[in-house]
Amino acid sequence: MPSHFQLLKTDTATAARRGRLRTRHGVIETPIFMPVGTQGTVKSLTPAHLHEIGAQIILGNTYHLNLRPGSELIRDLGGLHAFMGWNGPILTDSGGFQVFSLAKLRDIREDGVAFQSHLDGTKLFLGPREVMGIQQNLGSDIAMVIDECPPWPCERDACARACERSLRWAKQCREIATESGFLAAGHHVFAIAQGSTFDDLRREAAEALSALDFPGYAVGGVSVGEPEPEMLKQVGATTPFLPADKPRYTMGLGTPPQILKMIALGVDMFDCVLPSRVARNGLVFTPDGPMNLRNERFRTDARPISEEIVNYTTQFSRAYLRHVTIAGEIVSCTLLTLHNLHFYLDLVSQARAHIEAGDYAAWSRAWIARYEAGATARTAG
Amino acid sequence: MPSHFQLLKTDTATAARRGRLRTRHGVIETPIFMPVGTQGTVKSLTPAHLHEIGAQIILGNTYHLNLRPGSELIRDLGGLHAFMGWNGPILTDSGGFQVFSLAKLRDIREDGVAFQSHLDGTKLFLGPREVMGIQQNLGSDIAMVIDECPPWPCERDACARACERSLRWAKQCREIATESGFLAAGHHVFAIAQGSTFDDLRREAAEALSALDFPGYAVGGVSVGEPEPEMLKQVGATTPFLPADKPRYTMGLGTPPQILKMIALGVDMFDCVLPSRVARNGLVFTPDGPMNLRNERFRTDARPISEEIVNYTTQFSRAYLRHVTIAGEIVSCTLLTLHNLHFYLDLVSQARAHIEAGDYAAWSRAWIARYEAGATARTAG
Repeated sequence: MPSHFQLLKTDTATAARRGRLRTRHGVIETPIFMPVGTQGTVKSLTPAHLHEIGAQIILGNTYHLNLRPGSELIRDLGGLHAFMGWNGPILTDSGGFQVFSLAKLRDIREDGVAFQSHLDGTKLFLGPREVMGIQQNLGSDIAMVIDECPPWPCERDACARACERSLRWAKQCREIATESGFLAAGHHVFAIAQGSTFDDLRREAAEALSALDFPGYAVGGVSVGEPEPEMLKQVGATTPFLPADKPRYTMGLGTPPQILKMIALGVDMFDCVLPSRVARNGLVFTPDGPMNLRNERFRTDARPISEEIVNYTTQFSRAYLRHVTIAGEIVSCTLLTLHNLHFYLDLVSQARAHIEAGDYAAWSRAWIARYEAGATARTAG
Repeated sequence: MPSHFQLLKTDTATAARRGRLRTRHGVIETPIFMPVGTQGTVKSLTPAHLHEIGAQIILGNTYHLNLRPGSELIRDLGGLHAFMGWNGPILTDSGGFQVFSLAKLRDIREDGVAFQSHLDGTKLFLGPREVMGIQQNLGSDIAMVIDECPPWPCERDACARACERSLRWAKQCREIATESGFLAAGHHVFAIAQGSTFDDLRREAAEALSALDFPGYAVGGVSVGEPEPEMLKQVGATTPFLPADKPRYTMGLGTPPQILKMIALGVDMFDCVLPSRVARNGLVFTPDGPMNLRNERFRTDARPISEEIVNYTTQFSRAYLRHVTIAGEIVSCTLLTLHNLHFYLDLVSQARAHIEAGDYAAWSRAWIARYEAGATARTAG
């Protein structure tokens, strides 16, 4: 039986990789971007839209789905795939990150995190047993372990303690997923390597988790407020110590140039709310940088968002898209989200082709240069 | 050359008609329901959704489009069809009704209505020349004359004056549309018969407008607060005095049973914001009456909205649709609007089939009985 992850090609000039990940709901070509479906829907889009723009895998948020409508209800209705009408692969996070960023009055204990729901204040608890149980209820193709994500900046001692606790929780999650038959049934569980800005702690965490032989690995604790060079340094301090034959994922990232830079560091999987969140505010991505359609100069602009990108939204003029955005029409959220997510999916599709062609370094450098020059010109103009 | 409207069959037991209306952007099978696209979009849906649910013609609102983004801009961008990406027929109202219901400080003069924009207070004026100019800019397939819609209830004298003024404005609109070549180019202009609750004024208005030989006629001043029996009486007091070989339209109507009752009175065309407006609040239509998905009892309900209706939305469970509605997700607006508009389009499609089959009276009676029994049971339960 072939491994669940095939490394098809590794770039020579960079650490970029072209891979293929098998899941219970289909194959994912990597590098890949995963649209975020927080509450059982990728905001503003239907599953038909997701198929239309070539989404291969989407995310679900354990924290949110467990609060509302509840993971037992979703299980009883056939799992998250059936519930939300998406028959492709689904990755779910563990909920830990939202506990730290959203929940009230959290209390980190040795066996997990006690917290109050941000919706109604209900007292809840998430530990290894809980997060694996919820993700089993959801039927996730890829479940994430629960971890403690240190803030940025962070003291070395506090970071070391968070890494230790995260390692222990990861072990427990793996044991639970083995005992329950979750792993044997072909679901994957990914570990998360923390370590903040401390290279030695990053390496230690990556090596200790690698020894546990997880089906995949995430670089955690990035994009939590640190500047971009620091973020790239942290990813670069982690990936070399993760097994080459397992997929790698940076959680919650990033801008289009950041994604290309992460791919060059050997990252295979990405998710980010940025493209859908900014769409709901009128911002769209183009090969020449982001464009705010609320700007007055698009009022009479008959051109599409981009001449080079073809999706349902690019059949409309900038003037029309500006009009529905300014008028607060729901269709603006739908059309701009569709465009932005297609833009990201198209970007990683181009990245895959250029890794295969062997010119990823030159192509991504030129792509970023054009994008950043366009963004600068727009800001100046 | 065949007339623009073909009367294919008239029911014997009722005044229901099966017809076919030709426009510059295609043929419309009547009776038909027209989804409302107030600001250049049918709220929450894309044009692809409209095609998917079988929409044949949609509405645009002159008042709104003229304020924002402006009819000259839409003209310069190729007209409303190109602007909003809808290549089927479009009917636009004259804007008069919105002036009466939305605008501030309106002043009815002999040559039109002066008012202030509800958006920013700008002083504006709409008379026959203005509304025909705007609708020409939009490229409407069916333009409406400007009229004065008397409130309900209304004094006889005030109503008679409104009818007189409306008749004069209708004549002017027709002259303008003839001189400008708008009618000769195959655009239609529909007149609007007012008369409030006064049968003789209704008849007088209908006959005077009929003499002017418009391509179609609307029954105006209904659904402005009067009880349903009064509304049906007013429509019944108007349609017999409109030419049989021209399409008839009641503006802004109605509930599903009302539409079937209006069809029985010989009305061919309907538009209403009801199905899309209530969808945004979680209410969906079924053959057994409306259903509010916010209700707790749908929390675990794995069934579709209706077993008998097949559209994109009915592949989801009531539990899922309730979840995204309660969670305030945009996709709820999209899915529920799609369902409700499809429900209306499916209803008029069934009506057409039963007029053809000759059993419209029995079918519509049974349809309404089931719908109302279901609605009563839900309210009781």
